[in-house]
Amino acid sequence: MTISIRAARTGDGPILHAMIRELAVHHGSEKEFVARPEDYEIFLSNPHALNGALVAEWNGEAAGCATWQRSYETFIGRETMYLEDISVLPAFRRKGIATALLKAVARLAVERKAAAVSWLLMGWNTEARRLYEANGATVEDGNCFCKLSGAALERLAS
Amino acid sequence: MTISIRAARTGDGPILHAMIRELAVHHGSEKEFVARPEDYEIFLSNPHALNGALVAEWNGEAAGCATWQRSYETFIGRETMYLEDISVLPAFRRKGIATALLKAVARLAVERKAAAVSWLLMGWNTEARRLYEANGATVEDGNCFCKLSGAALERLAS
Repeated sequence: MTISIRAARTGDGPILHAMIRELAVHHGSEKEFVARPEDYEIFLSNPHALNGALVAEWNGEAAGCATWQRSYETFIGRETMYLEDISVLPAFRRKGIATALLKAVARLAVERKAAAVSWLLMGWNTEARRLYEANGATVEDGNCFCKLSGAALERLAS
Repeated sequence: MTISIRAARTGDGPILHAMIRELAVHHGSEKEFVARPEDYEIFLSNPHALNGALVAEWNGEAAGCATWQRSYETFIGRETMYLEDISVLPAFRRKGIATALLKAVARLAVERKAAAVSWLLMGWNTEARRLYEANGATVEDGNCFCKLSGAALERLAS
């Protein structure tokens, strides 16, 4: 029984799509999930993309993924990494796959000389919070995620 | 009395630094603010940088800034923009400068074909929340900002 982690590559669009869709459903955000597998192929096939993904395999079978992007912190004045999603398919939970993915993201960040890895957590997700804290992350409460999109964005821009 | 907004350019490092430092102090994050003006010059002088800034001038005098970066949303499958900071110097507050900066960021997002602009707000900042909501943004409570950096990042990566 082994976990292995590899960089996502061209052709992984459909499996990433299935896994991230699963995450969206789990977060009650199914309506907002409009990405198509072919959208992911765009960054998977671009060696200079601003984002990327890791795939976790359990005995050679795709079991989970992490998606990341380049980011920047003005308070530090250096590039950082933003962790967008960690998803583990239901059949593969409680096997240490999320921890292995977080560790692989940390390695990638050190390799890329990123000053930090940051991400957002929903306050209700106490299980994920425990995992992150156990792996050395600081968790700051009381943040609000703000967004302008669609008609509201167009209106403000006009 | 006019507000004008322009893209930040090479040489704006020191004014951006003073403004973002002011914001860090206001947020009680003075200790975490380690950026130097010359760090900002690196992205200001790179036409392919992943981030950038806008400067607001009040009668020709630098009064505020907004910093942004390219981002990506896996649920949308498209590039977005992340708004890192909006800062207005104390002497220039209550003149509509923050709103003008937010509007300019929205314009830039539409120009760049970004699907959305997103940012984080501290829950205690009710004044900023009012401004964002009045300009059409959705504000989602209950998020936690997680971070791995320094020794904790090195440890997890090792």
